[in-house]
Amino acid sequence: MKTVFSPRHHGHSGHVELNNGRVVPAFEKPERAEMIRAAVEGRGLGPILAPAAHGLDPVLRVHEADYVSFLSEAWALWTADGRDFPALPSFWKAPGMRAIEPETIDGKLGHFSFDAGCCLVAGSFDAIAASVDVALTGVDLVAGGEPSAFALCRPPGHHAHAGTMGGYCYVNNAAVAAQAFRDRGTPRVAILDVDYHHGNGTQSIFYERADVLVCNIHGHPTQEYPYFLGYEDETGAGAGEGFNANFPLRWGTGFEAWSAALETACRRVEAYAPDVVVVSLGVDTYKEDPISQFRLDSPDYLKIGARIARLRKPTLFVMEGGYAVEAIGVNVANTLEGFAGE
Amino acid sequence: MKTVFSPRHHGHSGHVELNNGRVVPAFEKPERAEMIRAAVEGRGLGPILAPAAHGLDPVLRVHEADYVSFLSEAWALWTADGRDFPALPSFWKAPGMRAIEPETIDGKLGHFSFDAGCCLVAGSFDAIAASVDVALTGVDLVAGGEPSAFALCRPPGHHAHAGTMGGYCYVNNAAVAAQAFRDRGTPRVAILDVDYHHGNGTQSIFYERADVLVCNIHGHPTQEYPYFLGYEDETGAGAGEGFNANFPLRWGTGFEAWSAALETACRRVEAYAPDVVVVSLGVDTYKEDPISQFRLDSPDYLKIGARIARLRKPTLFVMEGGYAVEAIGVNVANTLEGFAGE
Repeated sequence: MKTVFSPRHHGHSGHVELNNGRVVPAFEKPERAEMIRAAVEGRGLGPILAPAAHGLDPVLRVHEADYVSFLSEAWALWTADGRDFPALPSFWKAPGMRAIEPETIDGKLGHFSFDAGCCLVAGSFDAIAASVDVALTGVDLVAGGEPSAFALCRPPGHHAHAGTMGGYCYVNNAAVAAQAFRDRGTPRVAILDVDYHHGNGTQSIFYERADVLVCNIHGHPTQEYPYFLGYEDETGAGAGEGFNANFPLRWGTGFEAWSAALETACRRVEAYAPDVVVVSLGVDTYKEDPISQFRLDSPDYLKIGARIARLRKPTLFVMEGGYAVEAIGVNVANTLEGFAGE
Repeated sequence: MKTVFSPRHHGHSGHVELNNGRVVPAFEKPERAEMIRAAVEGRGLGPILAPAAHGLDPVLRVHEADYVSFLSEAWALWTADGRDFPALPSFWKAPGMRAIEPETIDGKLGHFSFDAGCCLVAGSFDAIAASVDVALTGVDLVAGGEPSAFALCRPPGHHAHAGTMGGYCYVNNAAVAAQAFRDRGTPRVAILDVDYHHGNGTQSIFYERADVLVCNIHGHPTQEYPYFLGYEDETGAGAGEGFNANFPLRWGTGFEAWSAALETACRRVEAYAPDVVVVSLGVDTYKEDPISQFRLDSPDYLKIGARIARLRKPTLFVMEGGYAVEAIGVNVANTLEGFAGE
């Protein structure tokens, strides 16, 4: 399997988040991508390619233009009055407030976000643009006939909505990739999100569409971030009714219950009979993850990869979360190896 | 004029806020109330009374029951798993997310807030309860025949919505007071909010009601917190159409333009012919305020008080913001003295 990777992710470094009442270095850090790249190399899983530039047009197919403009100019606006430290949103809209973009950057940060975990620094936008190019180059590979590819994206994407950032995510790489498949003529795309956290952005983007099935296995929203989406009764709306499936699981879930949910989700994908599968691959389901509460162990990821392979569909893996840096390479490589070995 | 004050505000101490990308000690701090109390004493503006306990029923007339329960239990839930540092919300709802109260305290904090400027510490709820008792005791005085009273509330209240905290505000003291006047049979109440920041919570609570006129003079929301309410075209809805008036002013506004807006707002109040006026008194319009951008000077507050006095209505002053601690006492006392001297 080919991996796509860009060192430009390093631009998104030195950023922080509000976590547990304190501003701390973000758990989503550059070492994550480097550990994964090293594991892919070390295991000899296949060549590692640089992404091709795709421009912002494919991004604008799923994201709102004013939001993308904001992402591109936020750092310049933040620093225009002399600030040289990371930008964090700190306020938002109460129910009933208005969605009017403010003039000032502090207001814009609130308008275009849903948490204080989406920090912007000098190199963030370049890294974001490179990350989505990684995903789109993965689409090129699979659409060009490769049976599978791994888009080693950083920053991740699945929390980003059409017009808001959050949860370390800015551009929804998996959603942009799914839309790119559709725009190349692929009739039906399934997104299988196995990250510990619900892929609220991905769900939201495709919620009223039948041409992209979205299945999510994740920490139950009554206990876990992002809290306000990810319930089982969210099954899609309008034309998309029946094309969104959530499998929320309680804190402490181990591989037995988790893999039962995966089996149900995979059968849902099989019933949909997609032409392509996009896997939002997070490995924060791992038992030692510092911000998550499931109990999967490293060998389990081999089985996850194997089950996904048995879908027997062209498959693009898109990297999402996973914050146990020491184990992230092993767990991702196990998933890909399990897939390749099936 | 009698002042109502409780030292229990000190319970809300040592709290922090996310400001400018950093967690810093909150600008809304105990010294504020003490400086005001000292100035009221020093000027001999009248007796200072302790509040009478009113319980939570008057609070529940404007706030949602699940929100008040949250406020009362948040610290116990936050510390139940061993945390002994201030609680801050750090995530919220993107457009389209669901308003389901999560089980976990971290989720609840996001559900019931709209910024990371509403910190909770061990003594917060006791201070919040004392603050609204101060306002309600002010209602008792004015409803009992006093021509005016000053409720020296801390924490402030005007940003708090029916079900969300934000902007240093938890219970909307002015809104609870206005409702208490109504519940004692006062037919028409006007709230005049002269704090630098838009009183979004107060507007929201009474937006569909004709029995409480709400007038706000404040920093323009396209530039200034709370950003997502406070525009001129917000004039009320339903039965409340025409009973909300906003006077947003740009950064750098001095007393000439500000007092012209006050004059217009006062004429709006006079046209309404209220039986009682509640003044949400913030003095963060002051030129040296550390987080605000108007240019009023201390003598201006004498004129503000005098103009409010010329409404010739029973008047309850309810303390809101003002963060230039050295000047806050002078500016508040000037307002009250200007009122009393007219």
